[in-house]
Amino acid sequence: MALLISKLGGEIKPSATLRLMEEVSSLEKEYGFKIIDLTSGQPDRGPTEDVLAALFEGGKLSRYGPVQGDPELREVLSGVINKEIGVRYDPQDIAITVGAKGGLDILMRVLLEPGESMGIMTPFWVTYPESVKIAYGIPCFLLPDGGLRPNPEKLRREIEAKNIKVLLYSSPCNPSGVVYTKDELEEIAKIVKEKDIWVIADEIYNKFLFDGKKHESILSIEGMRDNAILVDGPSKRLGVPGWRLGYVAGPSEVIKALTKLQGHVNSGTSRPAQYAMRVAYTSQKAKEATDDMRQRYERNRNVFVKGLNEIDGISCIKPEGAFYAFPSIDNFFGSKYEFAGKEFAIRSSVDFRNFLLRKAQVAGVEGAPFGMDSHIRFSLATGEENIVNALNYINHAMKELHL
Amino acid sequence: MALLISKLGGEIKPSATLRLMEEVSSLEKEYGFKIIDLTSGQPDRGPTEDVLAALFEGGKLSRYGPVQGDPELREVLSGVINKEIGVRYDPQDIAITVGAKGGLDILMRVLLEPGESMGIMTPFWVTYPESVKIAYGIPCFLLPDGGLRPNPEKLRREIEAKNIKVLLYSSPCNPSGVVYTKDELEEIAKIVKEKDIWVIADEIYNKFLFDGKKHESILSIEGMRDNAILVDGPSKRLGVPGWRLGYVAGPSEVIKALTKLQGHVNSGTSRPAQYAMRVAYTSQKAKEATDDMRQRYERNRNVFVKGLNEIDGISCIKPEGAFYAFPSIDNFFGSKYEFAGKEFAIRSSVDFRNFLLRKAQVAGVEGAPFGMDSHIRFSLATGEENIVNALNYINHAMKELHL
Repeated sequence: MALLISKLGGEIKPSATLRLMEEVSSLEKEYGFKIIDLTSGQPDRGPTEDVLAALFEGGKLSRYGPVQGDPELREVLSGVINKEIGVRYDPQDIAITVGAKGGLDILMRVLLEPGESMGIMTPFWVTYPESVKIAYGIPCFLLPDGGLRPNPEKLRREIEAKNIKVLLYSSPCNPSGVVYTKDELEEIAKIVKEKDIWVIADEIYNKFLFDGKKHESILSIEGMRDNAILVDGPSKRLGVPGWRLGYVAGPSEVIKALTKLQGHVNSGTSRPAQYAMRVAYTSQKAKEATDDMRQRYERNRNVFVKGLNEIDGISCIKPEGAFYAFPSIDNFFGSKYEFAGKEFAIRSSVDFRNFLLRKAQVAGVEGAPFGMDSHIRFSLATGEENIVNALNYINHAMKELHL
Repeated sequence: MALLISKLGGEIKPSATLRLMEEVSSLEKEYGFKIIDLTSGQPDRGPTEDVLAALFEGGKLSRYGPVQGDPELREVLSGVINKEIGVRYDPQDIAITVGAKGGLDILMRVLLEPGESMGIMTPFWVTYPESVKIAYGIPCFLLPDGGLRPNPEKLRREIEAKNIKVLLYSSPCNPSGVVYTKDELEEIAKIVKEKDIWVIADEIYNKFLFDGKKHESILSIEGMRDNAILVDGPSKRLGVPGWRLGYVAGPSEVIKALTKLQGHVNSGTSRPAQYAMRVAYTSQKAKEATDDMRQRYERNRNVFVKGLNEIDGISCIKPEGAFYAFPSIDNFFGSKYEFAGKEFAIRSSVDFRNFLLRKAQVAGVEGAPFGMDSHIRFSLATGEENIVNALNYINHAMKELHL
């Protein structure tokens, strides 16, 4: 008899975004044509030369380092947080993790008992619910209003009804591009204090804000110091998701417990990468590269979202930040199309994603794993030519849909 | 009211070895003298120049990579496993993890349901029981015979009595240096098959074998393919613990589930380090550096273990591999000494560790977190001068113990 793996090992869904990224190239082989890949949750440029050079220098840090992460790096990050959010976190209240993801994974186990509920603002990053389940917590999905914005009244009711212990959101939001306003954050903070729960703010897209908007953080709201935890990292702003760097800042006892667990979970992330991150956060070249990306992605947003909204039946809110467009596509549920001599029907976001792959040669990520099967996510972190071509191809493909 | 963290976050013990490593330097400040640090679970030399150069080259891999790890690296490791253990694991049955530790952390959750029992061979690496607890499993400690060797009869009884689902051991053993013989492994394999349980073999010290011994793996025993899982990595043999690299090889469904979870837990380890690891496992220079370390540590063992056994009341088995000496020190429980005008009594391995720190200026790790409070662990991965001096200092200090 073959031995069985755990229920968890069987039931956890693979990361839809990472899996699709790996699958696009095999789909290209299967279909025999080049696909415009708009699935990717990462910037389209890598680190600057000075940061690369620092990685090499950091290679000499080959021995075990502090589990909490490089102290000099935490010092730098303390300054970054202070400058960008306006709150002072001491280096000992910051922990370096294996990506923001690695920070979240441990946070789940530090904040939740098995069976306790994590409230996740919908739509959400695909990993949130799975990360909660891996810690044997219960993911509870909190619904937005029509514009995909947080709805404080609904939120208050749901947090109470579902006995939520921790609230989790990203702002700028992956996948919607919604950026919470100061007013919205204050409303959320009020509820957090009222119910005395934790709140995790994933602010990893905070350097990608459009229309001159300024990043606002719940950490800077009075009274939030004891309840709020920041998750962030350089993957998006500095173009190094493959280096696996992230950090968590929060109340001392949370960071202490996270560090204890990290000592047994993985000892923290690769030290050469930590060393390079020190340089990256203080490099003028890296700053300019980030600004350049931000401007290009804003232009892409302008072109792409306008184009999507001109397509009959598609509706897309204008992203205020991050680098995604997240249009609704459920008007096409029930439609059909032909491909390779067969008829296919669209009944879900996965079906719509496959339709675009087959007929438009454009890859997006279905909305279902983001909590909204009515939508699809496209990445704007690519060259303008891809954005223009993708729009054309989608437009053409839409004409082949019929009832 | 301050919000509470989870029970787990409160109760998990920090890694004794990593914590001590961080503490030795602050102890030096406290006591005002230089300490000979024999706490470290890492080799005393770093990677060779060609491997460092590969890290720089690998920096260009700044985008997300496959969650399972670099395919070329898995291809290399498939060859390494085949050559060293004599079993063929396809690259798709190998996953790259954030150190061997990061592999174990995910394996716990893939193999155990919450509340199920992991059988850990005593003495054990400090992280094993905490890693099990972090996955809400129950660590059960399986006792060795007098020579710290596995005792198959006892093992069979305990596995049944404690309803063990997974068996976990390291060979060469950290901390004892015991290396399981082919006969012992066959006995263990028989029990594993009989009870149809999983077995995890942590073979990370397999390049550190003394007296011309050859490494034997349970994976190469007939019938073990469906039950056995290998955990290994380059941290020790290639001197890169700070780079956070490890791997797991095993049955397809285990590696598939591990990869799925890893996609949400941390997306895998830093890609530049993975790239360098490809080179490290095929580099002649790196091989020579490993051989050199092995020879030096064998000489250190010869000097140190002989010296320890010449001290009245200390008894140390001769390590056959790894790079530690693990003498018993419980003969001194009840003894006293003076330091800084105060009298201290020795009642535990922690007390004995503090005694050596204060009176011999030698740092070892107390045996308690390895499952044997009667012992203390010293690392042999250091220069011969440190070994000789440490022996002298310990010898002197022992004279100051009294009843």
